[in-house]
Amino acid sequence: MHPLLTGLTGGPVRPSRSLLRPLGTDEISITGGFWAHKQRVNSEATLAHCEEWMERIGWIGNFDRAASGTIAGHHAGIEFVDSEVYKLLEAMAWELGREPDAALEARYTALVARVAAAQEDDGYLHTSFGRPGQPERYSNLEFGHELYCFGHLFQAAVARLRTGYDDLLPQVARRLADHVHAEFGPSRRAAVCGHPEIEMGLVELARITGDSRHLEQARLFIERRGHGTLSASSFGPFGDEYFQDDVPVRETDTMRGHAVRALYLAAGALDVADETGDSVLEDAVARQWANAVARRTYLTGGAGSHHQDEAYGDDFELPPDRAYAETCAGIASVMLSWRLLLATGAEQYADLVERTLLNNVLASPREDGRAFFYTNTLHQRTPGAVPSEHELSHRAESSLRAPWFEVSCCPTNVARTLASVGLYFATATGAGIQLHQYGDYRIDTALDAGRIRLQVRSGYPLDGAVEVVVLEAPATEVDLRLRVPAWAAGAASLSEQPHLDAGTHLEVRRVLRAGEVIRLDLPMQPRVTWPDRRIDAIRGDFAVEAGPLVMVLESADLPDGWSVNEVEADAASLVAGPDGPQITVTRRADADAAWPYAPDRARPALQHHTARLTPYHAWANRGPSTMRVWIPQAE
Amino acid sequence: MHPLLTGLTGGPVRPSRSLLRPLGTDEISITGGFWAHKQRVNSEATLAHCEEWMERIGWIGNFDRAASGTIAGHHAGIEFVDSEVYKLLEAMAWELGREPDAALEARYTALVARVAAAQEDDGYLHTSFGRPGQPERYSNLEFGHELYCFGHLFQAAVARLRTGYDDLLPQVARRLADHVHAEFGPSRRAAVCGHPEIEMGLVELARITGDSRHLEQARLFIERRGHGTLSASSFGPFGDEYFQDDVPVRETDTMRGHAVRALYLAAGALDVADETGDSVLEDAVARQWANAVARRTYLTGGAGSHHQDEAYGDDFELPPDRAYAETCAGIASVMLSWRLLLATGAEQYADLVERTLLNNVLASPREDGRAFFYTNTLHQRTPGAVPSEHELSHRAESSLRAPWFEVSCCPTNVARTLASVGLYFATATGAGIQLHQYGDYRIDTALDAGRIRLQVRSGYPLDGAVEVVVLEAPATEVDLRLRVPAWAAGAASLSEQPHLDAGTHLEVRRVLRAGEVIRLDLPMQPRVTWPDRRIDAIRGDFAVEAGPLVMVLESADLPDGWSVNEVEADAASLVAGPDGPQITVTRRADADAAWPYAPDRARPALQHHTARLTPYHAWANRGPSTMRVWIPQAE
Repeated sequence: MHPLLTGLTGGPVRPSRSLLRPLGTDEISITGGFWAHKQRVNSEATLAHCEEWMERIGWIGNFDRAASGTIAGHHAGIEFVDSEVYKLLEAMAWELGREPDAALEARYTALVARVAAAQEDDGYLHTSFGRPGQPERYSNLEFGHELYCFGHLFQAAVARLRTGYDDLLPQVARRLADHVHAEFGPSRRAAVCGHPEIEMGLVELARITGDSRHLEQARLFIERRGHGTLSASSFGPFGDEYFQDDVPVRETDTMRGHAVRALYLAAGALDVADETGDSVLEDAVARQWANAVARRTYLTGGAGSHHQDEAYGDDFELPPDRAYAETCAGIASVMLSWRLLLATGAEQYADLVERTLLNNVLASPREDGRAFFYTNTLHQRTPGAVPSEHELSHRAESSLRAPWFEVSCCPTNVARTLASVGLYFATATGAGIQLHQYGDYRIDTALDAGRIRLQVRSGYPLDGAVEVVVLEAPATEVDLRLRVPAWAAGAASLSEQPHLDAGTHLEVRRVLRAGEVIRLDLPMQPRVTWPDRRIDAIRGDFAVEAGPLVMVLESADLPDGWSVNEVEADAASLVAGPDGPQITVTRRADADAAWPYAPDRARPALQHHTARLTPYHAWANRGPSTMRVWIPQAE
Repeated sequence: MHPLLTGLTGGPVRPSRSLLRPLGTDEISITGGFWAHKQRVNSEATLAHCEEWMERIGWIGNFDRAASGTIAGHHAGIEFVDSEVYKLLEAMAWELGREPDAALEARYTALVARVAAAQEDDGYLHTSFGRPGQPERYSNLEFGHELYCFGHLFQAAVARLRTGYDDLLPQVARRLADHVHAEFGPSRRAAVCGHPEIEMGLVELARITGDSRHLEQARLFIERRGHGTLSASSFGPFGDEYFQDDVPVRETDTMRGHAVRALYLAAGALDVADETGDSVLEDAVARQWANAVARRTYLTGGAGSHHQDEAYGDDFELPPDRAYAETCAGIASVMLSWRLLLATGAEQYADLVERTLLNNVLASPREDGRAFFYTNTLHQRTPGAVPSEHELSHRAESSLRAPWFEVSCCPTNVARTLASVGLYFATATGAGIQLHQYGDYRIDTALDAGRIRLQVRSGYPLDGAVEVVVLEAPATEVDLRLRVPAWAAGAASLSEQPHLDAGTHLEVRRVLRAGEVIRLDLPMQPRVTWPDRRIDAIRGDFAVEAGPLVMVLESADLPDGWSVNEVEADAASLVAGPDGPQITVTRRADADAAWPYAPDRARPALQHHTARLTPYHAWANRGPSTMRVWIPQAE
């Protein structure tokens, strides 16, 4: 299928050693249903949308101006817009690996050529620094994002290599990685980038090229961090913690500071730990994940409670209305959980991948794939404004999905994630296959005992029936496992097992016959979810989930003039309606007192309405509305 | 007493026409008790602390360097540190008016001389702009704060004039005001300052000098605002609303954007409205006050729900843990409420002055007056760090009171407010006296019918007994009124009236005899307060108040190892203990689940403890602790 590099294919992550082996684009592909629709919108709308925007506002042109020596004074956008072009290239590479397309290949090749032309003789490549009239290279490690951009270029090159092509972008990446080694290698400048990201890229580059210097370089970046080397710069009220430069990764239990930085760093640290056999470092990352999930993660899987510094808050500080829950943090969380899943095989990591993909990441793109949420609030108090289709938006502050942002990390991050999303659905071992996510997709790979081909069929996430059709299987026993999500109390397998515990897996360990169908049934009826009482901001509230989907109450589903801010509901009124979960909400006739604090709790009479609930990821697709995930329980 | 300017004395605000007449330092003075202690700490510690810090870090020296032509490239601090020197001068002036002190007078005079030396020939005076090598004057109206600084100079000059001296600073102010008129007057530059403040200063200067150009200038600044003239600058995610430049003051019902800006603007607008008889503008400000108090104000009187932009949030968006509630916003709120009280006589404004002074403003200074809260959270989840006594602190983010800040508006604002705080306690009309705040203080002023001298005695805010001893009174009827706070259900007057409604006043309208004692008894037993259910962040929580004081649960009053984050209480357990209110708190043995959202609300067994509550303003005086105002009601 991919003549150039057979044997090197794989997904975004391919550890040298891991309990579970990821599958490449030649081994797994989405064939229909929910996810095929999302990928089609991504390929048909989002990729071109990103390219058109970045062409129009000069972010791609930066490379041309850098190549021609005219960039000084004419750089478009903030310092790190190169990375958006690289994420688009990564998205294109995955898309081309998924489904060859001559027109897209031509666009991809042309874009790579413009990037490559801007590379300097010593391998350095960044349009914001280093040329006459620009700030010097590495003069602003805190916020210059040079190494961050390199990391995204490396990941884009790895996507190209893993989909079978060793062409121009991988060459650019190798030269750039050599430059990084010359500048930041052992006994060179003992510095780190203000924004982690390069660590993952370097490890993956080492994995695919076999050049161990890149792994060593990544290890150095991980070990150098946490000693306050970034603190020399005066950076307002955030401090070392913002950069995770307060404590070394291996010494902390806490995910903290800027959420995307924290999660990219943890993912890179795990990559290093996996390759170097550093179990202390791996354990530290696993502890950070566990603590963050137990105390600092939104029901949607979102991370980041503060707008000010886009950061984690304290334990149990999870305000729904000021949730930052940046789309990129959700993607970073998926990247980290995926690595932990590969390393350990523990299904809790696949559970969080599912939750975060479906409820945080997928909430970002508008139905048409041409506008995006940057932040993902869990409570919209006032109907948001509709951003202009033609102007750059700011990243948050009560607007609906916007076509592009001044800092526009999220759209391209969504694009590369959706282009490769199927690669997160299943894994293999020598003995068998593990199905982690459900939908319509096909697997075709080799086990120790021989080739196996499976077709997975499911209306997931709306329908809980999952069928695995065996197309081809070895003649000997196969260990096939299907994840039973932690939320799936009451799961069963009609074909195999009448009762399955939630948070385990259906294990089919036997000879599989071509044509047979293995079935898993997950309970999709809506259910009530209560928060830990330590989450102050939502105490006394409940949420509704249906299967893997977090549901919301949106004003579009309330009578005219009602807002979600003035309603409550009895959780016991939740029923599965014909169009999805329904709940009877009560409008409180709150008197507008002169002072909102009083010696009594009395409230006057009420109106009732049965309201349909909407999946979180689909909210605000019907225009401006108020919305809440957490509904006050009627007293 | 003040030979130079008798007849011009008064407080910070002295409208030409108002229902109530404010009293000057020659008419009212604090004589002992709670407030005398606060004023003593302010005069003996805080004034010197501010002066020493600003001398050491070069903020005062900026004026010397400006005068000597060496300021370019050597300006210390951010653009608007001049204003801190002016607020200190205002504080010193009020302090000297309150209690003459030769040593302080010498310091004051020396400091004024250094400021005056930096004034340019055309009256302009700012150390950050306009000299060779500095940015041009008025080149950054959004954030340069030039006119803001002028406003503080005007207020400092007015304090000097109102305490009886027309000397160097008032001369500087007159020249500076002439400059403003020449630059920004009618048919000149139609611009406004990014931070309102000058409006109040100009109106007060017009009131005391009789120069109506200054009133007209203030009116122009009010009317020019709200038309997006500041929006030309790209200013991140905040926008016009941050500057209150989205809608003219007279056309909005909503207090919004940066809280200090919003409140200073409203106060200045009311000053203009009072002097010009503009009832539309006055009504708009009163509506904004009422809506903000009903929906956007913390129990402490604090304003500002967002850290990111120091701004008001949406209606009922009042998270206790991310309360910004900047000290300066509390002071600005007092300034606004005081103006509304003078204009209307309505006691609700005095109620908010009381609440905000005692629970927001007074929380800022540490007991020794040498460290300050900039933000005033209502829930501290982790014990704060103790800032260095010798370094500049950032303004927020989990630190305890800090000695000085990079943006240090609050300490000097506290200093000027405490130096003049007694001037907010009572007012006069031709017919009588209105007592708004309680403590130990003396009044000596003239009514239409003649001189009246009163001594007020009270252990307030800890004791609810207020005695007014008549020292001298006219021979004819006097209308004496004592405010009965809105919280004071069950108030009485042993001497006059067995039952008084909360939110009214005790009215004594008769001939007063020297030596007689009028008594008001306010109920100080602790009481439970519930929030409007629309305040999502504290739904299901209650607070405790005792008299005018908001109480907190502080970990210093819990057993070792307990945090306020894991406790709840039954509001019914509140009792008045020997050392203040007590409540029985329950420690929840919350299991540390892997995921904090679950299908049930069950919680395991419990420990109990009877905890003393502490006044909010005194919290964190025993070292780092966790703290909460809002206590979860046990289910």
